[in-house]
Amino acid sequence: MANFLETLSFLILLSFFPPTLSSPRPSRLHRSPKHAPRFLGKFSCSNYTGPLGAPSYRYETRYFDQDLDHFSFSDLPKFRQRYLINTEHWAGPDQLGPIFFYCGNEGDIEWFAANTGFVWELAPRFRAMIIFPEHRYYGESMPYGSGEEAYKNATTLAHLTAEQALADFAVLITELKRNLSAQACPVVLFGGSYGEVRNSCIQCDEKIFVIVRFIKFLHQTVLAAWMRLKYPHLAIGALASSAPILQFEDLVPPETFYDIVSNDFRRESVSCFNTIKDSWDVIESEGQKSSGLSYLTETFRFCKKLESADDLSNWLSSAYSYLGMGNYPYPADFLMPMPGNPIKEVCRKIDNCPNGTSILQRIFEGVSVYYNYTGTVDCFDLDDDPHGMNGWNWQACTEMVMPMSSSKKSSMFPAYDYNYTSDEEWCLENYHVKPRPTWITTEFGGHGFKNALKTFGSNIIFSNGLLDPWSGGSVLEDISETIVALVTEKGAHHLDLRPATAEDPDWLIEQRAAEVKLIQVWLDEYFDGKRAVFDM
Amino acid sequence: MANFLETLSFLILLSFFPPTLSSPRPSRLHRSPKHAPRFLGKFSCSNYTGPLGAPSYRYETRYFDQDLDHFSFSDLPKFRQRYLINTEHWAGPDQLGPIFFYCGNEGDIEWFAANTGFVWELAPRFRAMIIFPEHRYYGESMPYGSGEEAYKNATTLAHLTAEQALADFAVLITELKRNLSAQACPVVLFGGSYGEVRNSCIQCDEKIFVIVRFIKFLHQTVLAAWMRLKYPHLAIGALASSAPILQFEDLVPPETFYDIVSNDFRRESVSCFNTIKDSWDVIESEGQKSSGLSYLTETFRFCKKLESADDLSNWLSSAYSYLGMGNYPYPADFLMPMPGNPIKEVCRKIDNCPNGTSILQRIFEGVSVYYNYTGTVDCFDLDDDPHGMNGWNWQACTEMVMPMSSSKKSSMFPAYDYNYTSDEEWCLENYHVKPRPTWITTEFGGHGFKNALKTFGSNIIFSNGLLDPWSGGSVLEDISETIVALVTEKGAHHLDLRPATAEDPDWLIEQRAAEVKLIQVWLDEYFDGKRAVFDM
Repeated sequence: MANFLETLSFLILLSFFPPTLSSPRPSRLHRSPKHAPRFLGKFSCSNYTGPLGAPSYRYETRYFDQDLDHFSFSDLPKFRQRYLINTEHWAGPDQLGPIFFYCGNEGDIEWFAANTGFVWELAPRFRAMIIFPEHRYYGESMPYGSGEEAYKNATTLAHLTAEQALADFAVLITELKRNLSAQACPVVLFGGSYGEVRNSCIQCDEKIFVIVRFIKFLHQTVLAAWMRLKYPHLAIGALASSAPILQFEDLVPPETFYDIVSNDFRRESVSCFNTIKDSWDVIESEGQKSSGLSYLTETFRFCKKLESADDLSNWLSSAYSYLGMGNYPYPADFLMPMPGNPIKEVCRKIDNCPNGTSILQRIFEGVSVYYNYTGTVDCFDLDDDPHGMNGWNWQACTEMVMPMSSSKKSSMFPAYDYNYTSDEEWCLENYHVKPRPTWITTEFGGHGFKNALKTFGSNIIFSNGLLDPWSGGSVLEDISETIVALVTEKGAHHLDLRPATAEDPDWLIEQRAAEVKLIQVWLDEYFDGKRAVFDM
Repeated sequence: MANFLETLSFLILLSFFPPTLSSPRPSRLHRSPKHAPRFLGKFSCSNYTGPLGAPSYRYETRYFDQDLDHFSFSDLPKFRQRYLINTEHWAGPDQLGPIFFYCGNEGDIEWFAANTGFVWELAPRFRAMIIFPEHRYYGESMPYGSGEEAYKNATTLAHLTAEQALADFAVLITELKRNLSAQACPVVLFGGSYGEVRNSCIQCDEKIFVIVRFIKFLHQTVLAAWMRLKYPHLAIGALASSAPILQFEDLVPPETFYDIVSNDFRRESVSCFNTIKDSWDVIESEGQKSSGLSYLTETFRFCKKLESADDLSNWLSSAYSYLGMGNYPYPADFLMPMPGNPIKEVCRKIDNCPNGTSILQRIFEGVSVYYNYTGTVDCFDLDDDPHGMNGWNWQACTEMVMPMSSSKKSSMFPAYDYNYTSDEEWCLENYHVKPRPTWITTEFGGHGFKNALKTFGSNIIFSNGLLDPWSGGSVLEDISETIVALVTEKGAHHLDLRPATAEDPDWLIEQRAAEVKLIQVWLDEYFDGKRAVFDM
C-alpha cells in the first residue's frame, strides 16, 4: 500500500450509499423554515431528507459575522457563521438560565442538531437555551461566500483549523450573552458525533454518493473538551462524548483503533475474526488472477467492475470500522440502518453459512448486514475522489495528524505501518501544505496531559463506550474529582448523546443519569457561587 | 484633546532620553559574544551599552525557526526567534532539573535578561535551566528577514499578536524539551517588566532618542499569566509580576491607572498634588499667549522650541507616570536614573521652592528629578513619531485595547475621557486596521474571570506593589489556594523581579521569600506526582 490517504485512509474511510437509500423518506427536521444550502452543485446533498422516524426539534436559524482569522490581523473578509437557537424552555437571564452549547463539528449543523437528542431532551429539565453553532468551512458557514470559493485552494482553506473554530465559538458565546443580557448565565458545552454523517458531505455528486471518512468522527468530539480547556471562563463544564483527545502523536499505540474494532469482532466470534483476517490474502490473490477482479466484482455485487482488489479491501475495512462505532444494542440508523448488536449479526452471517461456502461469500454475507440491511440494494456502487478538497482531509493534512496502524498480530485488518513521511508527501502533493504533526499536543496537551489536568482543569465528563474504537484514544479513568470518565463496557460511539429510546439498556440509562447529575452539580455550584457574591 | 494615541498616549507615553545619557558606560552583560543586531538603521540603538553597575549574566544566544502563523496554514515564511539559554546550574533531565522560562516581552530579549535578576539569582538554588525567548517582532526576532520588512505595513504586521507569541513559547518549550530529552522537566514561567525600556526601542534614530510608551509595560507582564492559563500542560506555574490582566474593557474603572499615580503623589504631599493638578491650566493658558511657547520652552529648557503646550503636558504626564511605576525604595535606574522614593523627592522639590517661585518653575524643579537626576542635562529634547509603525502601537490598535481615562475629580492629570471611537479612527487611519476591543477578554477571560479561575487554574502568583499604577488592573487578592496575590503596600512596578540589593527593605525580602517558597511547593508537588507514578 502506498500512503496514508491513498491507502490507509481509503482502506478504512471510504463508504458508500446505494442509490436505493435515496428514495424519499418522511421529512424529519425542525419546523422553522429550512434554509436552502448556500453552496450547491457538488457541495449539496439535498436529495437525502433524513432518517426514518427521527425526532423533530424546533429552532431558529441565525447568522453571525465572524472574523476569519482571530489570531492575526490580516485583512480578510468576515464570514457568516450559521447557528441554530432554541429558547423556548430558557429560564432567561434573570433566573440565570443555562445555555447548552453544542460545539458544532465538521458538517451541516442541522444534522448535528437532529442527531443529538440528549441535548434537546435535557434542556427543558434545566430550563436551558440550546445553541448549535456550525463549524467554519462546513454546512452554510463558508468563508469567501461559497463552499466552492472556500475550498478553492490552500490559501482559502488556510483558516480551517480547530483553534479558529474554537475562537468562533468563544466570540459567539460572548456576543450572544451580551446581546441577551445573559452574561451571568452558565454555559455547558456538549460535543459528540452524529448519526447522519452521509449528510455532512462536503463533496457529493449527483448520484447521492457520499464520501465518508470516519476519521471525521474524531474532530467534533474533541472540540467540547478543548473548548473547556482553552476557554474555561466561558463555560462551566463540558460533556465530551467519545472524545479521543489522546489519538495524536505517540500518546496511544497507533494500533489502538483497529485493535478495538478487531476485538469487537473476536469477542463475538473467534472464527468470524479469523475468517475476516484470512480474507485479505484471498482477496489479494484473487485480484492478481486474470479474471479475478471480475470474479470479485460479481461476488460482491458491485455495479461497476472493480479497478483493484484494494478498493474492495477498503470497502470492507470501512464497514467493519463503522460497525465497531455503531455497535449499538438496538437497531439504529448510524451511517447505515443496522440491527441491534450489528457485529453479532455480521458474525452470525459469516459463521453460519452452509459448509463449503467460500470465504469470500461468507464475507459478503457478513458485510451485507452493514451495506444492505434493508435488503433493497441490487448492486453496490464504489467511487471516491481522494484528491478532492475535502474539509477533513485538509484538517488531517495540517494539524489533525493521527497516526494509525493495523497490527498483523492483533488486528483482523490488513497489516499497515503508519508512515508519516508518505502522508506528508501526499499532503504536499495534493494540498501544497505541510502537516504540523506535533502541533495539536503542543497546543492542547498530550504527554503528561493527565497530570496537568489534575492541577488545572475541572468539570469535564469524558464519556465512552468500550466497544467504540475511538475509546482507546480517549480518557477512560477519572483524572480528578471533577474531570471524570463515564465508561460503559457495552457502549459504542457517542451512544449517550443519542435520543432516549424505549430499548435503552439499563447501563445506558444509568450513564445518562450520571451525566445529568454531574451537570446539575456544575450548575448548583455555579449558582451557589453567584449567591455567595450577592450575599456579600 | 483629539484622540487616544495622539493625546492620551502622547500625554503619557512619550519619554525622552537626553543625549548626555548616551555617553559610553561600562559594558554590562554576559560573556558570550554579543550578536550584532540583524536590523540596523532606525531599529538599532547600539550606542547605549547598559546601566551602570548592572550585573553580568552568562548565556548562549540561539535561534529557533518558528511558524509565523500557528493557528492557520497560510503559506508564510518562517522566522528566526532568538532565545538566550543558560544551563550551567541545570540538574539535567535525569534529575528532572527545572526550566525557568521568562516570557519575553516587547523588546530586545537581552535587556530583559539583564534586568530580571531574580530569575538568575534563583536558578542555582533550584538547579534550573534559564531560557529567555524573545517576543516576535521585537529585538532580533523579526519576521520577513528584518525589522524594516516586518514593520512595513499592516499585512506584514498582521501576526504580531499575543496569542501568536504565546504559541511561539509553547512550540519552543516543547521542542527544546524534546531536543534535550527533558520532556519530564518542570517549567516555571516568569513575567515581569524590565528596567531598561530605552533599549527596547523599535524605532530610534541616530540621536539616541528612543520612543518609550509605558503602556508597553503592560504586555509582557500578562504573558506569563496568560501562558499558564492557555498552556497549563507546558508549565507547572507562573510568577506574574505586576500583571494587569484586568486592564481591559470595563473590568476596572478606566481612571484606575491615573488615580493610583495621583494617589502616589497625594500620599507624599497634598500641596505637591495640587501644584501639579493646577499646572495644566497654567501651561495651557501660557501656550495660548503670543510668546507663550517660547516662555515654556525656556522655562523647561527644551533644546528646540515647543510646537504646542500639549507636548509639554505629555512630557510631564509621562514623567509622573514613570515615577509612579519606578517609585522604588532605593536609587535605581528604572527608565531613568532616580533616587530612592523618587516621588517624595519630586514633591520635596516642588514644595520646597522659595516663596514666590512660579508654579511652572516648581514643576520644572520637580520633574528634573526624573529627567535630570544625574544633573548632566543642559537642554531636553522632545520628539516623537506617533505615526511610526511602532510594535506596541500596532498591538494597541489591534487587540491590546485598554481604556484609560483621567478623572477631573480624583486625578492630578489633565481630565480625559476614554473614547473608543476616536481610537478606532486613529488606528484605521494610521494602520488600516480595526481594533477588536472585546477580543482579549473573550480569549483570556475578564468578566467573571476570578470565579472561573477558582474552579479552573492553579499555581499562579500575582505579585504587585500598590504604588505601581498597574496594580489597579491586576489581581490583588487570592483567588484560590494556589492562585495567590502577593501584595506589598510600598512596592512599585515588578520590584520583586529586580536583582536583590543591599538596600532591599524587609517587606521586599519577605515578598521574594514567599515567591521562592511557592515555587518550591509547585516543584515539590510535581516531583511527588512523578514519584507516585514511578512507585506504581
